[in-house]
Amino acid sequence: MLKPLGDRVILEVTQEEEKTVGGLVLASAAKEKPQTAKVVAVGEGNVLENGQKSPMPVAVGDMVMFEKYSGTEVKYDGSEYLIIAAKDIMAIVE
Amino acid sequence: MLKPLGDRVILEVTQEEEKTVGGLVLASAAKEKPQTAKVVAVGEGNVLENGQKSPMPVAVGDMVMFEKYSGTEVKYDGSEYLIIAAKDIMAIVE
Amino acid sequence: MLKPLGDRVILEVTQEEEKTVGGLVLASAAKEKPQTAKVVAVGEGNVLENGQKSPMPVAVGDMVMFEKYSGTEVKYDGSEYLIIAAKDIMAIVE
Amino acid sequence: MLKPLGDRVILEVTQEEEKTVGGLVLASAAKEKPQTAKVVAVGEGNVLENGQKSPMPVAVGDMVMFEKYSGTEVKYDGSEYLIIAAKDIMAIVE
Amino acid sequence: MLKPLGDRVILEVTQEEEKTVGGLVLASAAKEKPQTAKVVAVGEGNVLENGQKSPMPVAVGDMVMFEKYSGTEVKYDGSEYLIIAAKDIMAIVE
Amino acid sequence: MLKPLGDRVILEVTQEEEKTVGGLVLASAAKEKPQTAKVVAVGEGNVLENGQKSPMPVAVGDMVMFEKYSGTEVKYDGSEYLIIAAKDIMAIVE
Amino acid sequence: MLKPLGDRVILEVTQEEEKTVGGLVLASAAKEKPQTAKVVAVGEGNVLENGQKSPMPVAVGDMVMFEKYSGTEVKYDGSEYLIIAAKDIMAIVE
Repeated sequence: MLKPLGDRVILEVTQEEEKTVGGLVLASAAKEKPQTAKVVAVGEGNVLENGQKSPMPVAVGDMVMFEKYSGTEVKYDGSEYLIIAAKDIMAIVE
Repeated sequence: MLKPLGDRVILEVTQEEEKTVGGLVLASAAKEKPQTAKVVAVGEGNVLENGQKSPMPVAVGDMVMFEKYSGTEVKYDGSEYLIIAAKDIMAIVE
Repeated sequence: MLKPLGDRVILEVTQEEEKTVGGLVLASAAKEKPQTAKVVAVGEGNVLENGQKSPMPVAVGDMVMFEKYSGTEVKYDGSEYLIIAAKDIMAIVE
Repeated sequence: MLKPLGDRVILEVTQEEEKTVGGLVLASAAKEKPQTAKVVAVGEGNVLENGQKSPMPVAVGDMVMFEKYSGTEVKYDGSEYLIIAAKDIMAIVE
Repeated sequence: MLKPLGDRVILEVTQEEEKTVGGLVLASAAKEKPQTAKVVAVGEGNVLENGQKSPMPVAVGDMVMFEKYSGTEVKYDGSEYLIIAAKDIMAIVE
Repeated sequence: MLKPLGDRVILEVTQEEEKTVGGLVLASAAKEKPQTAKVVAVGEGNVLENGQKSPMPVAVGDMVMFEKYSGTEVKYDGSEYLIIAAKDIMAIVE
Repeated sequence: MLKPLGDRVILEVTQEEEKTVGGLVLASAAKEKPQTAKVVAVGEGNVLENGQKSPMPVAVGDMVMFEKYSGTEVKYDGSEYLIIAAKDIMAIVE
C-alpha cells in the first residue's frame, strides 16, 4: 500500500473511452491526457504554523478533476498512479 | 455536477456574437478569446492561517470578466467550462 | 456597469493630444502609450489576514498616472477601459 | 501637482555637469545616467499588516542616490521626473 | 556515520532488478532511475518560527517513494546515498 | 557625506597589491575584483514588522569580505564607494 | 581571523586523496569537487522575527558534507576557505 505524505493524494487515472472506427481502437498520438481520476489514498495534510494539520478537501473514492501536468506518475504493484498535491485538484465530479 | 475546490470558480464562457457578412459567419482565426463568462459554481474559499475560509467575491449567476490566459478549460457532460481562481476574476458585469 | 473586484481599479485612459502638422493628425506608430487616466470605478480592497479590507488609495474621478504595461484592457459597452491593480497606480495628478 | 502613492517618491533628476572641450559641450552617447536626484514629493508609506504606515526615509528637498534602472520616468507639466519606490533609494547626500 | 541536518533524510536507493536475457544483465542506458529507497537516517526537523522543530514524517527503516531529480547523491564509506528534504518524499510504501 | 538608508552599508574597496615584475606593475585584465573592503558608513537598519530596526552586524572601520557582484558602485566627491546590503557582507576580517 | 556573519559558516575544504598509479598522482580534469569539509568558524545565527538568533547546527571542528556549488570561495592569509550558509550544510560526518 502507498501512504501519501503531507497534503498529497494518490489518484488512479481513469482511462477515457477511446473512439473506435468499426471496432478498431484509434490510438491517437494527439489524444489529450485524461484529467479525471479516482482518489485511492489521502495524506494527513500539511503541518500548519500553529501545529494543526491542513484539512484535506477530498476523500477516498471521490472522482476528481486535476490540473494538467501536475503530480508525479508512479508505478506500484503493477499499476500506475498519480501522486498529486491537494491544491492541484480543481474539482470533485459529483 | 462539478464542485470546485478551494477558491476556484467554474465559468461557462459566453460565446460572443461573431460578425457576419451577408449571413456568412466569419470564423476569424485572429478573433480574440471572449473574456466574459457566467459563474455556474463557486468553491468554499481557501482555508486561511486562522482556520477560517476566504470569502468568495462572486455568486452563481454573476456575469464576470476574467484575466486572459488564466484558468483551465475542462469538458464535462458535453459542455465546456473554465475552472478559474477567484483572484483571476477582474470584475462583475452588472 | 463594471464592478472591479479586490483591489482593482477601472480606468478610462485619456487620449493625449496628438501633434498635428498643418491640421493633419500624425498617427505615429512610435507614439508612446498614454500613462494618464481617469478613475471610473474602485474595488472594495483585498481581504487582509485580519479580515479587514485594504484601504483604496484612489477615488472615482481622480486623474492618475500608472505603471506602463500594467493592467488589462477590456472593452465594455463600446468603450475601452483598463482594469488595473491599485498598487500599479503611481501617483494622483492633482 | 503629482502626489505619489504608497511608498513612492518623486525625484527631479539633477543633470550632471558635462565635460566641455574649449566651451564645446560634449554630448557623449556613452555618458552614464546620473544617479543623484532631488526629492520633490514623498508618498505616505505603504499600509503594513498592523494597519500603520511604513515610515518614509527621505523628505522633500533631500538630495539622494538611487539604484540604476529603478523607477519610472514620467513627464508632467513640461518637466521630467522619476517616480521611484523608497526602497530603491540608497543614500542621502548630506 | 552521516547525521542529516534540518529536515533532511538520508536514503539508500534500492536497485531495481534489471531485466536479463539468458542470464545476461541488460545495462539499459534508458533505464529510469529508481524512485524507491530505504530511509537510513532522519534529521531533527527544521526550526520553526516558534522555536519548535517540524515533525519528521518518516522513520529509519521506512521504504519511501521520492520526487525524481530531488536530493543530492553523496558517497560515504564506499556506499552511495541520497540526501533529500523530507518535503520531497511523496509516500511511504507499506 | 553619504548617509546609507535601511540596512545598507558603504564600503571603501581596498585595492589589493598588484604583482610587479621588476618594478613594472602588471595590470592584468584577468585580475579578480577585490573582495575586501573597509566600512565607512552604516545605515540604521530595516524597519521590522514590530516597528523596531534590524541590528547592523558591522561598524564603521571594520574590514569586511563581501559577496562578489553584490552592491552598487557609486562615485562621490572624487572617490569610489560600494553601497551594499548588510546581508551581502559575509565576514569581518579581524 | 575571519568572523562569519549571520548564519554563515567557514569551511576548510578537505582535499580528497587522489588515486595514484605507481606513485604518480593522477590530476584528473574530471575529478569531482570534494564535498567534505571541516568547520573552522561559525556565525552567531540570523536574527529571527522575535529578536532571537537562529541556532547554528554545526560547531567548530565538525566534518560536514555540503551542497555542491553552494558557498563562496575566499582566500585569506594564504589559505582557501569556503563561506557557506548553514542551510547548505547537509550532514555532519561523525
